[in-house]
Amino acid sequence: MNTKKYTLTVTCPDKSGLIAAITNCIASSKGNILNLAQHTATDISMFFCRVDFAPEEGFEVENFKSLMEKNAGEFGMVWHLFDWAKKSRMALLVSKTSHCLYEVLLKHQDGQLHCEIPIVISNHPDLCAIATDFHIPFFKVDPEKGKAACEADILNLLKEYSVDVVCLARYMQILSPEFTRKWENKIINIHHGFLPAFKGAKPYHQAWHKGVKIIGATAHFANEDLDQGPIIYQDVVRINDTKSIEEFVLMGKDVERKVLVEGLKRYLNHNIFLHEGRTFIIE
Amino acid sequence: MNTKKYTLTVTCPDKSGLIAAITNCIASSKGNILNLAQHTATDISMFFCRVDFAPEEGFEVENFKSLMEKNAGEFGMVWHLFDWAKKSRMALLVSKTSHCLYEVLLKHQDGQLHCEIPIVISNHPDLCAIATDFHIPFFKVDPEKGKAACEADILNLLKEYSVDVVCLARYMQILSPEFTRKWENKIINIHHGFLPAFKGAKPYHQAWHKGVKIIGATAHFANEDLDQGPIIYQDVVRINDTKSIEEFVLMGKDVERKVLVEGLKRYLNHNIFLHEGRTFIIE
Amino acid sequence: MNTKKYTLTVTCPDKSGLIAAITNCIASSKGNILNLAQHTATDISMFFCRVDFAPEEGFEVENFKSLMEKNAGEFGMVWHLFDWAKKSRMALLVSKTSHCLYEVLLKHQDGQLHCEIPIVISNHPDLCAIATDFHIPFFKVDPEKGKAACEADILNLLKEYSVDVVCLARYMQILSPEFTRKWENKIINIHHGFLPAFKGAKPYHQAWHKGVKIIGATAHFANEDLDQGPIIYQDVVRINDTKSIEEFVLMGKDVERKVLVEGLKRYLNHNIFLHEGRTFIIE
Amino acid sequence: MNTKKYTLTVTCPDKSGLIAAITNCIASSKGNILNLAQHTATDISMFFCRVDFAPEEGFEVENFKSLMEKNAGEFGMVWHLFDWAKKSRMALLVSKTSHCLYEVLLKHQDGQLHCEIPIVISNHPDLCAIATDFHIPFFKVDPEKGKAACEADILNLLKEYSVDVVCLARYMQILSPEFTRKWENKIINIHHGFLPAFKGAKPYHQAWHKGVKIIGATAHFANEDLDQGPIIYQDVVRINDTKSIEEFVLMGKDVERKVLVEGLKRYLNHNIFLHEGRTFIIE
Repeated sequence: MNTKKYTLTVTCPDKSGLIAAITNCIASSKGNILNLAQHTATDISMFFCRVDFAPEEGFEVENFKSLMEKNAGEFGMVWHLFDWAKKSRMALLVSKTSHCLYEVLLKHQDGQLHCEIPIVISNHPDLCAIATDFHIPFFKVDPEKGKAACEADILNLLKEYSVDVVCLARYMQILSPEFTRKWENKIINIHHGFLPAFKGAKPYHQAWHKGVKIIGATAHFANEDLDQGPIIYQDVVRINDTKSIEEFVLMGKDVERKVLVEGLKRYLNHNIFLHEGRTFIIE
Repeated sequence: MNTKKYTLTVTCPDKSGLIAAITNCIASSKGNILNLAQHTATDISMFFCRVDFAPEEGFEVENFKSLMEKNAGEFGMVWHLFDWAKKSRMALLVSKTSHCLYEVLLKHQDGQLHCEIPIVISNHPDLCAIATDFHIPFFKVDPEKGKAACEADILNLLKEYSVDVVCLARYMQILSPEFTRKWENKIINIHHGFLPAFKGAKPYHQAWHKGVKIIGATAHFANEDLDQGPIIYQDVVRINDTKSIEEFVLMGKDVERKVLVEGLKRYLNHNIFLHEGRTFIIE
Repeated sequence: MNTKKYTLTVTCPDKSGLIAAITNCIASSKGNILNLAQHTATDISMFFCRVDFAPEEGFEVENFKSLMEKNAGEFGMVWHLFDWAKKSRMALLVSKTSHCLYEVLLKHQDGQLHCEIPIVISNHPDLCAIATDFHIPFFKVDPEKGKAACEADILNLLKEYSVDVVCLARYMQILSPEFTRKWENKIINIHHGFLPAFKGAKPYHQAWHKGVKIIGATAHFANEDLDQGPIIYQDVVRINDTKSIEEFVLMGKDVERKVLVEGLKRYLNHNIFLHEGRTFIIE
Repeated sequence: MNTKKYTLTVTCPDKSGLIAAITNCIASSKGNILNLAQHTATDISMFFCRVDFAPEEGFEVENFKSLMEKNAGEFGMVWHLFDWAKKSRMALLVSKTSHCLYEVLLKHQDGQLHCEIPIVISNHPDLCAIATDFHIPFFKVDPEKGKAACEADILNLLKEYSVDVVCLARYMQILSPEFTRKWENKIINIHHGFLPAFKGAKPYHQAWHKGVKIIGATAHFANEDLDQGPIIYQDVVRINDTKSIEEFVLMGKDVERKVLVEGLKRYLNHNIFLHEGRTFIIE
């Protein structure tokens, strides 16, 4: 990532000539396409395109943007341009369990998450030592003050630390509709069940009593419908019927941490397209 | 399977001494244990045990049964003894899609399903040629006569052909509560969705619109709650968001046929223990 | 597939401007891009691109070809244009086991393999009935005549039936170097082991004695080095150590048939790029 | 694990009456069987059995042992009795990469590895901080002293810290035959390739150039044949051909750490039976 790079995402109704229009716009602005992925969802006649390109001698970002505006007008495109020189600032909200926090911090340390992590926030003190081992400030909000006051404290911290995206790494509290609306499509949650099957509390207990043969976890955007927001990534693990609920929980931890990190990667690499309540991941 | 073999299954509340009691009963009846699998579900304090044994010189089945009755009284055991010389007779109910029918017939031909298949029943004529290619009589019931008359015809055929177990190999009709109660825990259905997530009609459409990243299929006992009966086997396949609903359907077919056959194997090999609305598969 | 469609594949050393050159060539020939997938293998600085496009009013294939020739000269491109109106003609070579033959015929019947299957050839009579059930002529070559004579007979049949590609669906004979050279990159074999681990005969026996915990199968191009040709597709299944060699074989069958069909799909859909002895599958 | 528990493992040639003999021995010694798993490997006529049992009022371990000795004489049994009150002491040997070290320490902290970890040894100082964060003494041996001197230092440390089992958590040095013979079947290595396919150095490079579609990792006992020792656990991940070698390495890390921990669990829970150069994992 030592060279300059942009990612362009485009969403619009399907039509002939879209890829040519996009690639011409990049080429005539002196951009060199590094990677192009696109998909036409024929079931709903929508077109999604994601292009990585490098600016070459003579590239002017404002020039590119005004060319894309013409495309947008002609084709009804919704588009975004991301500059890889600018990293998102991601806050981690946690509670008492450490496996997701550790995983995000370790993958970040390993250079696999394109973001900064300026702050860890929790309603319990338990995980403070882990955050500080990784040299990240840890703040505890006080649940005894009530949800509204807690959320106000969190919102202030997010503002103070210039946070762009929030990761609920097993936060275990339900955020208010006001909070999720304010941060719409910017809060990524890990649910420890294979949605939409086991919403709400104790999904592993639900799964055990139902006798399912495969359990899973889901990374999704949090919105005001609990565990119903658009799904980003999922994975599963086969269990057998000699496992106890406690063993489900242990096996589930490995799936959760993996799913959360894979979900974050897709967000931070601009692979997620949202349309009519679901995601399209274009890689 | 050229030698004599029995399978014993035992279910009871957990207690000290159960395995010793069972193995002693077999040994003192002159049975030689070939395989023993057992599980104590600590979450509900229940014990499940499955033993394969071969009768040796001097084994008398009635003698064995009366010894087991004493155990049953002492420990509250529910037990069954299956003689592998006797094969179940399984009817296949189908509709228009052939992939599950083919799979069951091919695995049966390959010796992987311990049963006889004396009859294929359908409400459409389309798959008749396949059944007869495999030398199995095919009967068409007439949906225009109404559900009650159709089911009466099916019940008569099941009786006439001495059927023990019914496999719904994509039958696509909802059986009446009277039918499912009469054949309780003897009807195995393949649902083309990962239960309990997508019950009812068009599960792949539901899954696509929800944007799930993994789809699946479920073999389960049919009961009066549609697609809610105890789960026997499940499998999944990862999809990506460039797949259309039609492609979900195609990918799903391979999962369905595999899941159905794996479910049937567990039934026919006496691996399924039912307890409080869920199965425990002991292998 | 009721509308006209072309697939273009391009391989060349990586360079700036490749995607723009290709998309411009298509657009200026009046082609409408339906799908574009591309990959730059940074480890070897090679570029691979696959484009589906539909001809629009005014498209002339010869015009397109001469434009692409200019690109080819400038960028060192190797390119192919496939017209989807023309189906490949695929011969199936089989021996005694039926699972791969059935699978290819069923998937073909289901419309999942874009080819014609004009002929089935075997060195044993066993599978004749299956081929004829699917209305495909079956020819037996006589192994007692010796390998050279057999292969001569096969080559004559391939010519007579205008065959383009050969599928070894568990053929179990080693083809001579003369044969594989003549049909280089046009013979697809299914090997019942996870290459490069278990080459040659009885891979499941080898795997069992080694005590591996996962077994697999590999679809690959056959060349003169036995089981060493470029790999097209692989899949695996977890086994546990209570399985016998015979059970490995049974479990392996399901993997083999799936892997073979997935390999054939990638060939027939023009997803396979060959470079320096390995494939790049671009989807 | 707060109650007393023993695990008995038995290996012998297959014969009628083995399970009855074992269960009778436990019952007559006043042991209560908690779990029994057994397997007869019909391909080699060998019997493997693993029993967990709790001592009840009147159980005497010496009494049990002398009863088992009689069985051993009669049936040719090789048997071991493990007391769960006694934990193995496992040394971790590491080099510069941290993912396996972190994983073992985190799973140990989470109570999933039944052992003590008294020491971490490395030939590089890089991972010292991690070990000490988890309050485990870290020792650096000096590679400049030469392999023999280094190994002598390691052997002294293993003795000093009363180590029972050695885990090579990406140690990256080849141990001498003297070392591996001395610690035969007590050194568990993680190899970052799917053995037996890619032995030796840079397995991900080998895999990439071969064009395999699935990569994996293998936990195995280290012996004097490099990467040839008995396999304990394996897992794989599907890759696609748009991945670079560097991405193989990153994806591989997650597989490696998982496989290593799963291998260690099977060792520490006494699930591994060794016979004729391969393992049988009985769970």
